[in-house]
Amino acid sequence: MTKYVYDFAEGDASMRNLLGGKGANLAEMTGLGMPVPKGFTITTEACTQYYADGEQINDAIRAETMEHVATLEAAMGKKFGDDENPLLVSVRSGSRASMPGMMDTILNLGMNDVVVETIARKSGNPRFAWDSYRRFIQMYSDVVMEVGKAYFEKLIDEMKEARGVTQDVELTAEDLKELAGQFKAEYFSKIGEEFPSDPIDQLFGAIKAVFRSWDNPRAVYYRRLNEIPSDWGTAVNVQSMVFGNMGDTSGTGVAFSRNPATGESGLFGEFLMNAQGEDVVAGIRTPETIDQLRDENPAVYNQFVEIVGRLEDHYRDMQDMEFTIEEGKLFMLQTRNGKRTAAAAFKIACDLVDEGKITPKEAVLSIDPKQIDALLHPQFDTAELKAATPIGKGLPASPGAASGQVVFTAEHAAAEGKQGKKVVLVRLETTPEDIEGMHYAQGILTARGGMTSHAAVVARGMGTCCVAGLGEIKFGADEKSFTLGGKTYGEGDWISLDGSTGNVYGQAIKTVPAEISGYFGRVMEWADEFRTLKVRTNADTPRDAAQAIEFGAEGIGLCRTEHMFFETDRIAAIREMIVSETVEQRKAALAKLLPMQRGDFEGIYTAMKGFPVTIRLLDPPLHEFLPTEEDDIVALAAEMKISVDDLKSKIASLHEFNPMMGHRGCRLDVTYPEIGEMQTRAIIEAAINVQKAHPEWKVVPEIMIPLVGEVKELAFVKNIVTTTADQVIAEAGVELEYLVGTMIEIPRAALTADEIATEAQFFSFGTNDLTQMTFGFSRDDAGKFLDAYYDKKIYENDPFARIDENGVGKLVKMAAELGKQTRPDIKLGICGEHGGDPSSVEFCHQVGLNYVSCSPFRVPVARLAAARAALRSA
Amino acid sequence: MTKYVYDFAEGDASMRNLLGGKGANLAEMTGLGMPVPKGFTITTEACTQYYADGEQINDAIRAETMEHVATLEAAMGKKFGDDENPLLVSVRSGSRASMPGMMDTILNLGMNDVVVETIARKSGNPRFAWDSYRRFIQMYSDVVMEVGKAYFEKLIDEMKEARGVTQDVELTAEDLKELAGQFKAEYFSKIGEEFPSDPIDQLFGAIKAVFRSWDNPRAVYYRRLNEIPSDWGTAVNVQSMVFGNMGDTSGTGVAFSRNPATGESGLFGEFLMNAQGEDVVAGIRTPETIDQLRDENPAVYNQFVEIVGRLEDHYRDMQDMEFTIEEGKLFMLQTRNGKRTAAAAFKIACDLVDEGKITPKEAVLSIDPKQIDALLHPQFDTAELKAATPIGKGLPASPGAASGQVVFTAEHAAAEGKQGKKVVLVRLETTPEDIEGMHYAQGILTARGGMTSHAAVVARGMGTCCVAGLGEIKFGADEKSFTLGGKTYGEGDWISLDGSTGNVYGQAIKTVPAEISGYFGRVMEWADEFRTLKVRTNADTPRDAAQAIEFGAEGIGLCRTEHMFFETDRIAAIREMIVSETVEQRKAALAKLLPMQRGDFEGIYTAMKGFPVTIRLLDPPLHEFLPTEEDDIVALAAEMKISVDDLKSKIASLHEFNPMMGHRGCRLDVTYPEIGEMQTRAIIEAAINVQKAHPEWKVVPEIMIPLVGEVKELAFVKNIVTTTADQVIAEAGVELEYLVGTMIEIPRAALTADEIATEAQFFSFGTNDLTQMTFGFSRDDAGKFLDAYYDKKIYENDPFARIDENGVGKLVKMAAELGKQTRPDIKLGICGEHGGDPSSVEFCHQVGLNYVSCSPFRVPVARLAAARAALRSA
Repeated sequence: MTKYVYDFAEGDASMRNLLGGKGANLAEMTGLGMPVPKGFTITTEACTQYYADGEQINDAIRAETMEHVATLEAAMGKKFGDDENPLLVSVRSGSRASMPGMMDTILNLGMNDVVVETIARKSGNPRFAWDSYRRFIQMYSDVVMEVGKAYFEKLIDEMKEARGVTQDVELTAEDLKELAGQFKAEYFSKIGEEFPSDPIDQLFGAIKAVFRSWDNPRAVYYRRLNEIPSDWGTAVNVQSMVFGNMGDTSGTGVAFSRNPATGESGLFGEFLMNAQGEDVVAGIRTPETIDQLRDENPAVYNQFVEIVGRLEDHYRDMQDMEFTIEEGKLFMLQTRNGKRTAAAAFKIACDLVDEGKITPKEAVLSIDPKQIDALLHPQFDTAELKAATPIGKGLPASPGAASGQVVFTAEHAAAEGKQGKKVVLVRLETTPEDIEGMHYAQGILTARGGMTSHAAVVARGMGTCCVAGLGEIKFGADEKSFTLGGKTYGEGDWISLDGSTGNVYGQAIKTVPAEISGYFGRVMEWADEFRTLKVRTNADTPRDAAQAIEFGAEGIGLCRTEHMFFETDRIAAIREMIVSETVEQRKAALAKLLPMQRGDFEGIYTAMKGFPVTIRLLDPPLHEFLPTEEDDIVALAAEMKISVDDLKSKIASLHEFNPMMGHRGCRLDVTYPEIGEMQTRAIIEAAINVQKAHPEWKVVPEIMIPLVGEVKELAFVKNIVTTTADQVIAEAGVELEYLVGTMIEIPRAALTADEIATEAQFFSFGTNDLTQMTFGFSRDDAGKFLDAYYDKKIYENDPFARIDENGVGKLVKMAAELGKQTRPDIKLGICGEHGGDPSSVEFCHQVGLNYVSCSPFRVPVARLAAARAALRSA
Repeated sequence: MTKYVYDFAEGDASMRNLLGGKGANLAEMTGLGMPVPKGFTITTEACTQYYADGEQINDAIRAETMEHVATLEAAMGKKFGDDENPLLVSVRSGSRASMPGMMDTILNLGMNDVVVETIARKSGNPRFAWDSYRRFIQMYSDVVMEVGKAYFEKLIDEMKEARGVTQDVELTAEDLKELAGQFKAEYFSKIGEEFPSDPIDQLFGAIKAVFRSWDNPRAVYYRRLNEIPSDWGTAVNVQSMVFGNMGDTSGTGVAFSRNPATGESGLFGEFLMNAQGEDVVAGIRTPETIDQLRDENPAVYNQFVEIVGRLEDHYRDMQDMEFTIEEGKLFMLQTRNGKRTAAAAFKIACDLVDEGKITPKEAVLSIDPKQIDALLHPQFDTAELKAATPIGKGLPASPGAASGQVVFTAEHAAAEGKQGKKVVLVRLETTPEDIEGMHYAQGILTARGGMTSHAAVVARGMGTCCVAGLGEIKFGADEKSFTLGGKTYGEGDWISLDGSTGNVYGQAIKTVPAEISGYFGRVMEWADEFRTLKVRTNADTPRDAAQAIEFGAEGIGLCRTEHMFFETDRIAAIREMIVSETVEQRKAALAKLLPMQRGDFEGIYTAMKGFPVTIRLLDPPLHEFLPTEEDDIVALAAEMKISVDDLKSKIASLHEFNPMMGHRGCRLDVTYPEIGEMQTRAIIEAAINVQKAHPEWKVVPEIMIPLVGEVKELAFVKNIVTTTADQVIAEAGVELEYLVGTMIEIPRAALTADEIATEAQFFSFGTNDLTQMTFGFSRDDAGKFLDAYYDKKIYENDPFARIDENGVGKLVKMAAELGKQTRPDIKLGICGEHGGDPSSVEFCHQVGLNYVSCSPFRVPVARLAAARAALRSA
């Protein structure tokens, strides 16, 4: 039979999955002989069972809980509802992972009209007794029965007004007693039942409330953000009360064993005398710093310091603790590994290594790779941020913080940016033509598009903050203003974006520039030692490539040749190529592009200093390069010397119902081999030139053929590439090594990877498209229904952000295995967005890829994630 | 070492793959002791080797061929180029499968200026000798060196004019000798070399020409149409010449052992005395019927009849033979199983069974299921068709023949059709609103769309002839005319369509109605006995369902609920549902639809008489139902009582970049559960009503959830279905069994089929969408590049017509296995277009599906294909 309830003395820290983090640590501290108020934990399995039973607490769980109540009563010499020695308990949730958004705490459970009198009498402090009682009614009503807090606050305000006072503490015991009566009446009027006076009814009400809170929308949202499975469930901790509000020798506080903001050594925290836990957080009175406790109560302080030292040594990590002092006696209510800023995380890890407490491997494992983003990008000033309220929330598309004046066009952004003004570019969606303006903007905000939209991908590449897909934005008719959160913002108005949370603020907020410390470098060096996966970058320009090298990239895994096509000097030639009616016309247009592309590649090889560079042949459908506005069409027709009607008919003929699955990728080379010929010539000629200029490097271009679904298709395009490349090399009379490989981004390519590998020297998994095709939804359209999927818990993660191991991952694994069967030394990499996602990087390590490739600013994230994967699988 | 050349005496009929059909049968007849001119066969492997060697005949093949030439010379007592006994040979291609479009024959090879004189002298017939010589030069130049025939025809015409004669036969030996000289001069002027006089050079030239012809565009096209792999290659048959043109006791002919048009027993054929093979075909002189041979040369006739009888008994099938009589002596030049019309195929199969020559199993195996189409649909009158020239060729989207006057709108088609006029509907593409007009049209011609476009799918369902995707059609600006093949056709002009070939004719052509014989019924009964796969139909209306039952369907595998949505009485309610802003509005609109849907389903259950009916929940994206034209939008807004701007903004908000991968299928039920509730209610209420009315049937609805990619998604929608269904059943107080299953049409569903099967009681493979997603191309867009893929031999078949076993098939197989692991009794079917394609049906049998489902007119095809699959795998 399953055991659903554990006494604190029965558990330990290893039982976190069953007891939750809080319960496991209470048990561990109990085992260490520390002063922990007695209690028990109802397991996470009981929570899962509660949902399996249709949100009912079954008889087994109820009976076992009752046994533990009896044990607790016996141990404490107190009884629930007793008029001599009444037992009061706290009830707290506690899941495996710390999870804000869930029900936190109910204090003073066990109070009723009888007990309050007993406590008033025994404590000799009626005000304390009645204050505890009214707090309990208020908290229980709010948390358990979801009677809004506001009603109670209103009653308190009315009481204070009647009494002519302004502070809660000025209310007398009598006032509070009257309030308690009003609260119960309010409860009755809202719920239609009397407030429960039986402590057992109160207890099970509270337990259910904890279980229910596991599934409240905030918790569900948080889980999705943090990739916590919904079937973990939460435990419930029932603990006998100790009181920090019993008078001036009582108090309560929180403390960290090191500074969580900077990582500096030494106790860091605050406390309030004569207060319960919530008062410290509520900010009604200003708490004292932990140092003041040393002066006020050196005995308790010294005992606490000794306990903190033991806990940090025991857990070998910085601790975050809650404690209460009841009439001069110290009790520990919680310990856990403390949350910390990114900067603190790196300093603490290094310090713990230097103090001999942990090894470099443990240091690497102690840091969440996602935290690195915060080090590499500007962040908001914490105080200013606290004071600001978001006006909307979009997708956190590219991390960092940005504050600037609104502009609505890329041209405007560039113009203002060049004058040193800070601007935020607000667009329905961005297009490749917006690149320059995006470069000058502090941040980018779009109404449409997801995590892999143009705006998101380009912003991440640049390291610019971006919030995408904020659908609530309504643009004004003149496109010179937008409305959000009930207010209209025009050109020049200040707004701020948090690209790490998706929050948007209707005001300026000070930002703090990114600052990389020596601690970061030390940890990253350790990471590089441990990892086996190589880390490359997705970069299309020498500037991005150089940035990535600085962040530790070991090559380019994806250079998108088309991103170079939009610059003003070449878009004309591109369009000329597209509207060509004959092979000769097309070749003439391509000849104009050749020197430009060659120049692009020379720049990139030079920036990469001999690191490998994977260049993908033209990928998008051609209509993406054509104008859509009437004016632009007229202008283009004039430029091309064709009639507007002919141009329109050409544009119409290129229309596609489903462009994502249309005439693009290697399909362009199958129909127009001359495109592949020109690109290959540019790639190889550039390599030859850079190799000549830098004999100290070895330049080895890796030419990547996109969107392959069938080996014969790859063979056809590869033949164009090798024929051209070999000819160029022969013409130049040099030796040059080059590789030809393919993207694996079409399910059929993964399924037939054994055949594909006969022609491909490397595979690069294009998991963006592979995810779209495997799920059968387009990333540009899925936004309309994916929210419903998250709400209904059908999907818990965005499959475009974190690789779907069950489906897409199965194809990746299959393709890797089939590819190696055919060609044991085949080079395997990933160049989808997933290449910079820590859990996806771990998956890539597990399935045996050789490298991951991600945008420059995610390179350090990938390096650390790769090291953690290697350490964990070792 | 590979043996590349076989003497006729070395081979037999079992060696068809190596020797080709012609070579194997010549060898077989030689082995049977029949009079076959001696010769040898160069194998299909030599052809493959020729391509592997870069279109060169390698030394091994050349040496082995020379050995066999020597053996042949010895056996015949003749020598190539000899001035006493010169050897002349024919060179013919012969692949495994009979394949028009390849090089056929070169006769009289070995002729040169010396040999012609010898033959003139020895035959005493100089005219014969010079005629043979000039024919050889002409044929060799045309076939081997690709010097166009026209040049030679012109020289012949000039000669006839100079001689003042009109017939070839009126030219004298001297004339022909002069022509031979002119031909050689012509050859020199075109090729820049002398005509080869060495017979060995001639021979290898001819062999190469045969090999080359394997890859000429017509042959490639034919292979694609007939699913013949390009790596089979062709064999080359070298055979000593016998002459049908040596005078009045010589002749040549072709004959069938039974009538290939009707299947009637008895010899059927024709011959010409004093002629070579090509003359019979060329139609210059009218051949005599084979019966006349009995009167003219009873000895030869009787010998031939005896040989024909032996061959039919030997091959146990109707034979198609070529023969030559040389100076009264009969020679067999070819035998093969004869091609026949669909009607003849069924009669011959039954007759052979009745004659005890074959078993019913063999009868079933003798008929190509693709032939059935011709029996079920009208066909063109053969004579009129012969006289007509196509003006264009589109995709053969729905078989049959149609002739009618052009109309350009569905309304017009319906109006004319109701008056009994024959019309052909010509559209850019059809939409669901066109259904009624399509029903009244004889045939449908579209400029856009593929084999699975709306026009194609609906036409096949109705059994109406359709040619789709004829991109060359240019519509006039007023959309009241179109231009094709250089001519403009307006309303009322007659055109004709062949839906089996894709040909379009600019004239009326008489059609012959479909006629199903008793022979057809007998063979289909045998087929039903042997097959294990069930055959269901895709039907959306009671009319289609009844038609399918008549064709032997055993249930409905796919009823598309949305096809009922376009009728005028309900589209308003649909649109109202779509533009609803609240759940209440949507429910109100759905309530209007409920009785209509219930009525639809009652009709279908009634038509199906207790056979199982699988109903798919709403599948297409909602914007498909909304109007696109300004007028319609204004009208709808008025009807809906909302502003035009609001409606336009609603329509714009439903726009999708890639609608195929957008908000459709079960995703609609996840976001709008009330749609699934209404549909389930309609399905179950209808079943209850029909079950009550017909207690003798067992009505078991199978509710199918489309576009599932994840088990939790299926569980969510299934819960909507079962909750509603159980409630409706409880309300009615009856017992009703129903199943809930899913389409497998998203790659992820196939990959996670073990999980999906925990919720699904059946899988139906939607191989249309599965093919799109697995290949990553949209069927609506792929037309633009797939032709290039066929030209370049990257794909040899249309994956939307024949299942791609390597990729899509791998997913189907995987899903079937995973599904059975979880749920051993899971019901597996297919409802994509592939369900009616014979080779795909065979695949379905092999992977263990329970049924295939196809459009009504393909049901007999599937029944026969299923039987053949069962017999072949036994």
